[in-house]
Amino acid sequence: MILVKRRIEFRDTDAAGIVHFSAFFPMMEAAEHEALRQVGLSVMQPTAGGGHRTWPRVSAHCDYQHAARFEQVLEIAVSVTRLGQTSVTYGFDFRCEKFQIASGTITAVCCDWSPGGSLSKIPIPDDVRAALQRI
Amino acid sequence: MILVKRRIEFRDTDAAGIVHFSAFFPMMEAAEHEALRQVGLSVMQPTAGGGHRTWPRVSAHCDYQHAARFEQVLEIAVSVTRLGQTSVTYGFDFRCEKFQIASGTITAVCCDWSPGGSLSKIPIPDDVRAALQRI
Amino acid sequence: MILVKRRIEFRDTDAAGIVHFSAFFPMMEAAEHEALRQVGLSVMQPTAGGGHRTWPRVSAHCDYQHAARFEQVLEIAVSVTRLGQTSVTYGFDFRCEKFQIASGTITAVCCDWSPGGSLSKIPIPDDVRAALQRI
Amino acid sequence: MILVKRRIEFRDTDAAGIVHFSAFFPMMEAAEHEALRQVGLSVMQPTAGGGHRTWPRVSAHCDYQHAARFEQVLEIAVSVTRLGQTSVTYGFDFRCEKFQIASGTITAVCCDWSPGGSLSKIPIPDDVRAALQRI
Repeated sequence: MILVKRRIEFRDTDAAGIVHFSAFFPMMEAAEHEALRQVGLSVMQPTAGGGHRTWPRVSAHCDYQHAARFEQVLEIAVSVTRLGQTSVTYGFDFRCEKFQIASGTITAVCCDWSPGGSLSKIPIPDDVRAALQRI
Repeated sequence: MILVKRRIEFRDTDAAGIVHFSAFFPMMEAAEHEALRQVGLSVMQPTAGGGHRTWPRVSAHCDYQHAARFEQVLEIAVSVTRLGQTSVTYGFDFRCEKFQIASGTITAVCCDWSPGGSLSKIPIPDDVRAALQRI
Repeated sequence: MILVKRRIEFRDTDAAGIVHFSAFFPMMEAAEHEALRQVGLSVMQPTAGGGHRTWPRVSAHCDYQHAARFEQVLEIAVSVTRLGQTSVTYGFDFRCEKFQIASGTITAVCCDWSPGGSLSKIPIPDDVRAALQRI
Repeated sequence: MILVKRRIEFRDTDAAGIVHFSAFFPMMEAAEHEALRQVGLSVMQPTAGGGHRTWPRVSAHCDYQHAARFEQVLEIAVSVTRLGQTSVTYGFDFRCEKFQIASGTITAVCCDWSPGGSLSKIPIPDDVRAALQRI
């Protein structure tokens, strides 16, 4: 599990005075990418063949428990909750002081993105799998 | 079920060349609001007491089947898939030509938002319930 | 001059209850792209060599006169205010009923984007220039 | 002048593979708010009368010199370039390593936002003015 902090920006809020529900998804993704960097990975990793290994999303969800507001600092706990042959599911837990704000998941599939633009699902390489297990 | 069309804007895309997964959530919400307008409702409805009836989200999810790209026109089918005492779940189906692009849900709770800013869950009023059943 | 209508979505608003100032920039761009489509152009046009003609932005600005709010329908007047050798400046005028809401500009440069990813400035081709003059 | 660092997130990019021009505006605003916090201010400050002092934007602009890409860390230099009776103009300079990426401005007006929702322009209070001069 990797902890990431993030301060709510004004653009994340809406006319109800709170963080817009959709804003949690880019926050989850940014926390995922920060966790990947901390274990030496990137969501867009150049491959030997001149393409990239990338992780298109197949599913995302979020449950909302408490409203979050402008300038609050959220603690986002990122963990790998499932590691399949070709896919990974991350869990995200948003807290602010003692409040549970939201919890969500993102499921992504390991793919090769060739220089020509085609995308093909591949088994998660062993070194990547080992790094993901450290999240 | 109500059909809404929407053209993909450049800001919806990301560096992978496709619509960013998070962009589907504001699209779902805009389609929900359009459906509400078509049955005579609004997501922010003034109430007799000087406050508003509003619908905070408790849950949202999306599954992704095919990538969508800049300038494509998506057809979004909005339906009410569950109508509880105080909550409603909308289902969204995104298609582009013959491709299923994505499908998602949003669950929202009926609340009174007083002029003082407090938010309290209320049973969905009968006229609102009848209107939602027409979606 | 080409008129485009656009309804304010909830995601465009912020905790001050009005449209966030930054939201006018994607609205301008979407109006620009709609105007381009109406004269038979696209902001990402495939070229003979397998690349694209594209229009990176060199400058953008917006002045704000009146606040805009959720669900209002804005009228956006798009015009070409300057057409240089390699660049075009669009002007945008946002109105809602009798109120002037905002006015802005975007300046973009005509470029070839080769399949290899390099970007080079080119003179605006004559047919594109003629089409732009119809905006 | 106050320096703020910011890592480019995937949501800031677009299908041209670079940071979308509109994404610089929320980045400027977040840098402004960080600068305000560093001198003890907030863009939404509660006032004695139960309202807020707030800073609606009257103008924003940005010039783009070099493209920025996913995961790059930008250095944003925030300064107050003009301090009028009721308004302030911030300048923003975005750099990445030795490249000038973009430069922009935001002009905001000091306003009282009453609990009833009306907004009125006021002279910048002396203590606020003194704090702004430290940016």
